[in-house]
Amino acid sequence: MRFGVNYTPASGWFHSWQHLREEDVRRDLGQIASLGVDHIRIFPLWPVVQPNRSLISQTALDDVMTVVDVAAEFGLDVNLDVLQGHLSSYDFLPAWISTWHRRNLFTDPDVVQAEADLAAEFARRLEGRPNIMGITLGNELNQFAPPLHPDAHPVTPEQASAWLEALVAGARSQGDPFVTNAMYDASWYDDRQPFEPRHAVEFGDATVVHSWVFNGAAQTFGPLHDGSVRHAEYLLQLAAAWHEDAARPVWLQEVGAPTTVIPRESAPDFLEATIRNAASVPGLMGVTWWCSHDVSRALADFPEVEYDLGLFTHDGVLKPTGERFAALVAEFRGAGAGAQAGSAGSGGRASGESSAGTGGAPSSSSTVAVVLDDTAEGYRATCAPGGAFHRAWLDAAAAGGQGPQVLLASRGRDAARLAERGITTVLDSGASAAGAITANR
Amino acid sequence: MRFGVNYTPASGWFHSWQHLREEDVRRDLGQIASLGVDHIRIFPLWPVVQPNRSLISQTALDDVMTVVDVAAEFGLDVNLDVLQGHLSSYDFLPAWISTWHRRNLFTDPDVVQAEADLAAEFARRLEGRPNIMGITLGNELNQFAPPLHPDAHPVTPEQASAWLEALVAGARSQGDPFVTNAMYDASWYDDRQPFEPRHAVEFGDATVVHSWVFNGAAQTFGPLHDGSVRHAEYLLQLAAAWHEDAARPVWLQEVGAPTTVIPRESAPDFLEATIRNAASVPGLMGVTWWCSHDVSRALADFPEVEYDLGLFTHDGVLKPTGERFAALVAEFRGAGAGAQAGSAGSGGRASGESSAGTGGAPSSSSTVAVVLDDTAEGYRATCAPGGAFHRAWLDAAAAGGQGPQVLLASRGRDAARLAERGITTVLDSGASAAGAITANR
Repeated sequence: MRFGVNYTPASGWFHSWQHLREEDVRRDLGQIASLGVDHIRIFPLWPVVQPNRSLISQTALDDVMTVVDVAAEFGLDVNLDVLQGHLSSYDFLPAWISTWHRRNLFTDPDVVQAEADLAAEFARRLEGRPNIMGITLGNELNQFAPPLHPDAHPVTPEQASAWLEALVAGARSQGDPFVTNAMYDASWYDDRQPFEPRHAVEFGDATVVHSWVFNGAAQTFGPLHDGSVRHAEYLLQLAAAWHEDAARPVWLQEVGAPTTVIPRESAPDFLEATIRNAASVPGLMGVTWWCSHDVSRALADFPEVEYDLGLFTHDGVLKPTGERFAALVAEFRGAGAGAQAGSAGSGGRASGESSAGTGGAPSSSSTVAVVLDDTAEGYRATCAPGGAFHRAWLDAAAAGGQGPQVLLASRGRDAARLAERGITTVLDSGASAAGAITANR
Repeated sequence: MRFGVNYTPASGWFHSWQHLREEDVRRDLGQIASLGVDHIRIFPLWPVVQPNRSLISQTALDDVMTVVDVAAEFGLDVNLDVLQGHLSSYDFLPAWISTWHRRNLFTDPDVVQAEADLAAEFARRLEGRPNIMGITLGNELNQFAPPLHPDAHPVTPEQASAWLEALVAGARSQGDPFVTNAMYDASWYDDRQPFEPRHAVEFGDATVVHSWVFNGAAQTFGPLHDGSVRHAEYLLQLAAAWHEDAARPVWLQEVGAPTTVIPRESAPDFLEATIRNAASVPGLMGVTWWCSHDVSRALADFPEVEYDLGLFTHDGVLKPTGERFAALVAEFRGAGAGAQAGSAGSGGRASGESSAGTGGAPSSSSTVAVVLDDTAEGYRATCAPGGAFHRAWLDAAAAGGQGPQVLLASRGRDAARLAERGITTVLDSGASAAGAITANR
């Protein structure tokens, strides 16, 4: 299992792409490497890299390659997100897609071609570098889809598929990079969101989830309750339910401890329990924490949560969450998957309210599956934190001591499929979890 | 009278601010200097210079100072526009004023403070440099006001005054720069535009006009008709009508030959006639042509007109308009104001359809004034190209051989005021121009 961090530059945040200073990058990546992680995820700003529809700035690409090469010096692999797009409440849309030039970023043919061209150009520049982890199409572009965005770009699920297909093809037009599509959790929790769960599994080489408990999980259940510390695990299991290939990897590409809903003193325990629980999910390829460095208070107007998400302060001091993260990485690295399962029970969680996962390798994944009726209208709302399905999943997790798998009603209960996934017990989500487990066993 | 050009960087257009290359600037400014001009107007991009509300990029300011210093090498003064804002159909709004952070750029107190801070920071950095012409608050920010902008920032005339006051104060907080406010012509032609003619004359040190005959003038009257080649002169006279101080300078800060409405073969004649006519306006401090270099066809999605406005091609070849412009600059420079009047009659205009101004110094300005009833509702529409007032002014120009001054009905006909402005004949704009001149004399 890989460990990494989302790299939020300490000086000037992502605005630092405008005038990249290699010495700042070297300082930041040195700190990040001290955590023992193996990769970073980076986010060039779209308007900087592609300021005109037909102009990709080679200087901006050179800057990106500088970061990649400095990462290599520290033994870090790099995952690159193509379109930003959206970052920490700020949208970075190029002028050629805004106001007088307003065009739909998902459906306008010229725009989509330009986006695919950018993905291809990144792939071309990255190819052959030894420390490339992969290419993500962009950060949570589905935030620009209705209904929540204040200036939304309407798109149907079919158009979303076509857009993803075009961008994946762009990213794969050079070499054979590992390609992923990152969405925010409305795809699983909000029935109005046109990017759907299937868009997480039908494109690219792994299924990506971003787990943020400020979505209602922490507010509903409390900071160290299973509803919070199993949220990442839950979302990974939920997303994997749509897999056609049971062996498809899942990637916890963003997860953080938002201290607006997780008290700062509980954040290290939240971090540890979250990671141990997530590690129990079969096929988990990695955890990439959000984020490396706090946003400096010198930068205005960020949502309060963004100023305290770093494993380091903006001036490079390791925080308690950073210490805990580094210790966990060392433990997982040193012990290997078998020892992880053994060590899970002795995890240093401070609160009895929470439960840690078994830390098991995929082979020890839960044999229980809860059925999600994905044929029912409005099923996605039942998956949201506090919804009926989420509560049924949590009940089964509490009963079994491990988060269950998720079985889609639309897929039926084919015995071979269940066997492939190691499922021996199927729970209807409406049933009492403990009783159902007994009944089905 | 000063001559200059609006500097549109040949390589990468204004996107070149993101990764400024001094050698490109030196090449461009060398070409510009060869025209014989004394100044350039420059346009740093707002998101590059102030990427966060509380972050002014010192690196970006360093880049601006590099351009200023290279200009000095070529004997060029520099006028700097603070907020871009708007350029050639593209809006460059920072992320902290867009989508999730959408705030009114004219009225939000935090936004206005940040804008004023930026103006102050520019003033601080420019102070003491020998070749500073002045500071313009931004390029046609009134384009963001209703009604035409697709994502308008509503503002009342009173709020517009408050905004201008705050920004002028910012620009003047360091040293004593020459400060101006630039608006597009809807302020004089569109009764819905909240930035009004008074906003051109009540703030800063000179009255600025931007003359673009694609606004209907060329379409209505033809490329070399007085309605087109006197348009800049007309707009200068119209704007000056609101002066309280008859000696306040007027600046033709933008004027160009849009070959979408001026056939390319007529563009040099249009240029020459336009400049000669404008030069007849009393108090004209300068003409700053738009623009130095064509936008390269390699850059997509510009309105067609933008690809052919340069005095040079994008690869640095002097165009016929550039040759004519340079010849005019040499003539005005070499001959002085007296000789300009003498040379006007022999101006090399190709078409008898147009008329050149007398090229006179302010002392030879027209003694005729046409009355504009600015107390009538909807009076601004009558000023627009082809409107009743515009036609009356053109009639008077044709009768007198020179564009008349404009007298506001709201100001009355105080004899001292008329004497101060050198007005001996007052025409009601409804009257036949020739007849009225006779009747009033």
